Amino acid sequence: MKHNFGAGPCILPQEVFQEASQAVLNFNDTGLSILEISHRSKEFEAVIAEAERLVRELLSVPTGYSVLFLQGGASTQFAMVPLNLLPEGRKCAYLDTGTWASKAIKEARKVGEVTVVASSADANYTYIPKAYEVPADAAYFHFTSNNTIFGTEMLETPKADVPLVSDMSSDILSRKVNVADYGLIYAGAQKNMGPAGVTLVIVKDELLGKVGRTLPSIFDYQTHIGSGSMYNTPPVFSIYVSMLNLRWLKNKGGVKVIEQENIIKARTLYDEIDRNPLFRGTAVVEDRSRMNVTFITEDKAHEAAFLELAKERNLVGLKGHRSVGGFRASIYNALSIAGVNALVDAMQEFEEKTK
Amino acid sequence: MKHNFGAGPCILPQEVFQEASQAVLNFNDTGLSILEISHRSKEFEAVIAEAERLVRELLSVPTGYSVLFLQGGASTQFAMVPLNLLPEGRKCAYLDTGTWASKAIKEARKVGEVTVVASSADANYTYIPKAYEVPADAAYFHFTSNNTIFGTEMLETPKADVPLVSDMSSDILSRKVNVADYGLIYAGAQKNMGPAGVTLVIVKDELLGKVGRTLPSIFDYQTHIGSGSMYNTPPVFSIYVSMLNLRWLKNKGGVKVIEQENIIKARTLYDEIDRNPLFRGTAVVEDRSRMNVTFITEDKAHEAAFLELAKERNLVGLKGHRSVGGFRASIYNALSIAGVNALVDAMQEFEEKTK
Repeated sequence: MKHNFGAGPCILPQEVFQEASQAVLNFNDTGLSILEISHRSKEFEAVIAEAERLVRELLSVPTGYSVLFLQGGASTQFAMVPLNLLPEGRKCAYLDTGTWASKAIKEARKVGEVTVVASSADANYTYIPKAYEVPADAAYFHFTSNNTIFGTEMLETPKADVPLVSDMSSDILSRKVNVADYGLIYAGAQKNMGPAGVTLVIVKDELLGKVGRTLPSIFDYQTHIGSGSMYNTPPVFSIYVSMLNLRWLKNKGGVKVIEQENIIKARTLYDEIDRNPLFRGTAVVEDRSRMNVTFITEDKAHEAAFLELAKERNLVGLKGHRSVGGFRASIYNALSIAGVNALVDAMQEFEEKTK
Repeated sequence: MKHNFGAGPCILPQEVFQEASQAVLNFNDTGLSILEISHRSKEFEAVIAEAERLVRELLSVPTGYSVLFLQGGASTQFAMVPLNLLPEGRKCAYLDTGTWASKAIKEARKVGEVTVVASSADANYTYIPKAYEVPADAAYFHFTSNNTIFGTEMLETPKADVPLVSDMSSDILSRKVNVADYGLIYAGAQKNMGPAGVTLVIVKDELLGKVGRTLPSIFDYQTHIGSGSMYNTPPVFSIYVSMLNLRWLKNKGGVKVIEQENIIKARTLYDEIDRNPLFRGTAVVEDRSRMNVTFITEDKAHEAAFLELAKERNLVGLKGHRSVGGFRASIYNALSIAGVNALVDAMQEFEEKTK
């Protein structure tokens, strides 16, 4: 079996693959494929209802918040957030912690005034800025909680007197989050929640309907709230597989249990990076991500050789993003402790061989 | 085996289900699931390239046209079309042939001036209006080629001196279309092309970049053209299954061959509707759809009994849309002639029983 450290779309539990594969042939003994059932069928209505229930339960979503399953990925949310939350003539605040945060800022600027409260672009996004103030008159404050490319993560929710909006695409469901602290959370599913093709949005209802802007129906959160994420044909299979994955997480003990595993996995890997003289982490220690572990070889000449050894050990998806180089081990919920141990073993084997 | 007459998401070929199910466990002998491979992997790049090539080949797409695989369904196109093609101060023209055409009109009106050239709303959309003129100064003329709910279809391309834009969600790839006659064609995949979660767009490049409107990147066709439908993470699985389905269609002989089958299937079913004294078609004869056959019982009391008999004969998804009532047999590409014959048999059996 391969251990898939890819950054996304990425590993999901083997049980989920098994069940999804079966449903493509015969879904719930209906004699029909999950790919050919109507989204208006009672069978699929049960699926989407269970997916929503599981999100609410696993993340303890308070009342007054809607849970939506949309299409278009986080990139669509980059536009929908300001269109729905930034009234004409107001401004919004963004923290610039990497490529995806910058893209969100670019899209918000098309809608209105954006204050970038801080940026770590000066150091290739190796850290999370901490000394900044969010203007009290901002309509909302947006940040990217985990920076997939640069391997940094905001494990503490920032303080601000305005509604918080967070892109949690790559750390949703990996750790406890107090949803009540947020105005809106969004996440492309293709890391910890499910396969590509569906986006989770959790939004505080009272923030909506205040911008006085004519919106395309499909870009209006209220459209989707009013129709239970069924305004138009939803991505049936992606929602189904997400539901299976949410079920798996619940059966495992939920977010609290997976968070402990994620802490152990991250510590195990960072300990080896810090110990092994051949490797070095790229993010500052206090902002290291538990999801995407970015590291390089001290000697650039070792890079290809280590990737080759990893491949021989069935460890795949380790090549770093071109913006950082080196390696990136994405250790999402479904990547097992055994997978991390196998990577650590390979790093030690490489050290031995290189002596 | 069940014959699935559902309107969408709908039946796909059994071979496609088999291969998709296998790929969820082990895609192309990579040892990885299709759900966990990166959209930037060479394996997926080959998939999306083949999907595009097959669309170009099967529909004879001329040079100068881009082929895109997007998210958000036809409902997203309702907004993207006017945002990208209707310059400020100009108007566009729409033909109102049903629920989906009306929704497209509603979204276009949010962007600019819309001339509705004709409507069949007066007769519950049972026919396609023919006597209308498209203003020569319209930026484009939009029509819905097949009306899934009302069972009508425009088998001939209308004439107009402005670019034609067509929602072909429910008849794309079911019949020959001269793409060169069109400015833009779009189709939610979940009828004849693949599973829900991906939308095909074929657009004439020279029409783009002329509206002088600031667009969210994700809503701009040029964004997606520039990145080969990979501006953000695409719906990997939905594109993969679409590719399998396009391959199936090619192996069957292509659009010309399937069109002949579709003609035979539609004729077989309409002949029985016209012959059988218990049933009656709802759409006018000359505008009958080859994809969605809508019919009712002459005696309303027979409705539930016929659905019950059909179910016993493994014929599912036949209940009509609430806007029309009665029955709707969607006989898309993957619904076999054997399926249509089984339905005709059930209608004749019902006639016998009812005597």
